[in-house]
Amino acid sequence: MSDGLQRTLPSSAGGTSAAERWLLRAVMGALPGAGFEAVLWDGTRAGEPGGLRVHVRDRAALWRLARNPELHFGDLYSEGRIEVEGDLVAFLERAYRALEAGRRARGSPLLRFWRDVAPRARSIEAARENIHQHYDLGNDFYALWLDRDAMQYTCAYFPEPGMTLEQAQRAKMHHVCRKLRLQPGQQVFEAGCGWGGFALFMAREYGVRVRAWNISHEQVKYATERARALGLADRVEYVEDDYRNIRGACDAFVSVGMLEHVGPENYPALGAVIDRTLAPNGFGLIHSIGRNRPGLMNAWIERRIFPGAQPPALSQMMAIFEPYDFSVLDVENLRLHYAETLRHWRARFQAAADEVRASRGEAFVRAWDLYLAGSIAAFTTGSLQLFQVVFARGENNDLPASRRHLYD
Amino acid sequence: MSDGLQRTLPSSAGGTSAAERWLLRAVMGALPGAGFEAVLWDGTRAGEPGGLRVHVRDRAALWRLARNPELHFGDLYSEGRIEVEGDLVAFLERAYRALEAGRRARGSPLLRFWRDVAPRARSIEAARENIHQHYDLGNDFYALWLDRDAMQYTCAYFPEPGMTLEQAQRAKMHHVCRKLRLQPGQQVFEAGCGWGGFALFMAREYGVRVRAWNISHEQVKYATERARALGLADRVEYVEDDYRNIRGACDAFVSVGMLEHVGPENYPALGAVIDRTLAPNGFGLIHSIGRNRPGLMNAWIERRIFPGAQPPALSQMMAIFEPYDFSVLDVENLRLHYAETLRHWRARFQAAADEVRASRGEAFVRAWDLYLAGSIAAFTTGSLQLFQVVFARGENNDLPASRRHLYD
Repeated sequence: MSDGLQRTLPSSAGGTSAAERWLLRAVMGALPGAGFEAVLWDGTRAGEPGGLRVHVRDRAALWRLARNPELHFGDLYSEGRIEVEGDLVAFLERAYRALEAGRRARGSPLLRFWRDVAPRARSIEAARENIHQHYDLGNDFYALWLDRDAMQYTCAYFPEPGMTLEQAQRAKMHHVCRKLRLQPGQQVFEAGCGWGGFALFMAREYGVRVRAWNISHEQVKYATERARALGLADRVEYVEDDYRNIRGACDAFVSVGMLEHVGPENYPALGAVIDRTLAPNGFGLIHSIGRNRPGLMNAWIERRIFPGAQPPALSQMMAIFEPYDFSVLDVENLRLHYAETLRHWRARFQAAADEVRASRGEAFVRAWDLYLAGSIAAFTTGSLQLFQVVFARGENNDLPASRRHLYD
Repeated sequence: MSDGLQRTLPSSAGGTSAAERWLLRAVMGALPGAGFEAVLWDGTRAGEPGGLRVHVRDRAALWRLARNPELHFGDLYSEGRIEVEGDLVAFLERAYRALEAGRRARGSPLLRFWRDVAPRARSIEAARENIHQHYDLGNDFYALWLDRDAMQYTCAYFPEPGMTLEQAQRAKMHHVCRKLRLQPGQQVFEAGCGWGGFALFMAREYGVRVRAWNISHEQVKYATERARALGLADRVEYVEDDYRNIRGACDAFVSVGMLEHVGPENYPALGAVIDRTLAPNGFGLIHSIGRNRPGLMNAWIERRIFPGAQPPALSQMMAIFEPYDFSVLDVENLRLHYAETLRHWRARFQAAADEVRASRGEAFVRAWDLYLAGSIAAFTTGSLQLFQVVFARGENNDLPASRRHLYD
């Protein structure tokens, strides 16, 4: 995206001061082995020449970047005050790796300032606002770049090379249904259902009844209309409410891409919901972005894209299961599948960029392109993981002898 | 075992006191829904009639049982002062479930006394003594009831019905090797290698070189002789040393059935060992008995059978991986496979019981039969789990597109 953009903002006039040149070197010094070059408005440069360049186009941008690059890079990039010359994903991958290396080496005093920002609250009330900010941007917007069949805004599954996004999203949904061992006639509860495509898929392909919860008004409205149009309203019901208010009884409990928004402080509450609803021999599956160790979401993503988001480490996820004697049966990490999913999304987003720009403006397009590119880089560098966790009650002995049935 | 045994110890003379009858009712009251009957030496009984009966044959046994059944039941049973009428595994399953239900209900003041006992220390020195106590009982003894081919004293894998123990242990070893994606010529490090059967299997079947560590003198001696006899000494080396002293470089790191003895306080040390030895694109696998939530091993097992043993919850296991940015790729829970493995072991042990009794005495036979039966019950009731955890370095992108290769 960045290459073809017009530079709408003027660069800072004049040369750099000694302090600014020192600051540039200090920032690059905190990013060992960065593998890119940083260039200031007057041509002053630091870092490693070799094709990838980040241009900082004004004084204030440099100071903000030095203060907290993870937080401010995104806004500055969105505003066109930072430009990347070369492949944006490759640049971000190098930046992530260098930041990680810098943190491990603890070589720079700047790193003390580059702290993650505490995520927003995730009470029932706050969660509604958090979700509204992201998911109620307009269904039409998401329809531009998600898969056409099921509007899945979660990691797809590409077990074979050359799969389309639509095929891979279907493969993901089948994979989850097989892990849950869904049987016709069963009652499924789905916590966080997006635009409802997976609930419809389960009802149609596996003959189950589904009750699905979501606090995004736009999504629930869309999903309900779609179920009616497809003649599935008698088997699929969408409920506009918080996961903490789920009541009733189910044979299978599934949540794909909600946990990121729940927050670790609420994991025992989620476990309690599952404990009071899941049948004795029922299976559950939680699919979530995660991390290799506890930490916070990239500050800019949390601020501007996903308010309240916090992907958990596996150790943190266990707080859902351990208080209730759930037994974890299977964990699969699909990290690189999310990178591939995001490549598809970004290609479609870029193809639709003119349309988005016309209605939402250049900064929005740049922000979303950065978010998608940065997410690819986060999954390819291992900053983020994608966990599918299958569980059952501790005393459930009705378990398959192997996982072969997932691959037949 | 229990049914055909002669009662070698006399029962307490005389009737029960009011205090003893109260104590019996109190013990059974702490085990709600036990589904068995407890009978004292004079015929006094409490609990639920229905076939399963536990006989307490003297006063002192009753008092010790009331003090801490998890700790003392095993010794009293071994000494013949407690007898079980009916299927021992079924009785233990009911007892485990009732104890768990009692703990959750918190209905009985006795439960305050029924605490688990802190396990023994697991320093390098203490670990050697712990391991010696169990694994150096004599290779001939274990050969009586383990699989004949590879002397695997760990959970086998029964993906198909009707497999023999030998087939299931081979299936387990293949499953682990496939998870590690072993390639000919690779260097494998194995931490805790038992009698060395798996190391030989990897060398023979997958063409790798193996260096395997173990602190059991008897096992290392046996394994080294076996490698020489099979002409594999040039490719398989056994080292009598602690896992904390592992040095060198490997393409794959595997540990099957050692972590139970390591203790959570040493998990970061184990992670550090893997971090300093594993190749950038190497895979690791840890196979261990585990639990659904943190807790201690059954006190009697820890005291009499496995000194220092402590099976971890998954949340605890993550302390191996998280400090070093390892990425967990795959977790599989093989709990019921361990129950099946133990059924095979117990059947073979019982078939060899006369031979064991002749050399080690009746109490030893009863203790080991109880240990095997109790372990079956622990896995069938979900008190214990069996986790296989596959991991790689966080930045390793050379990952298979799916787990299908495990099932081809």
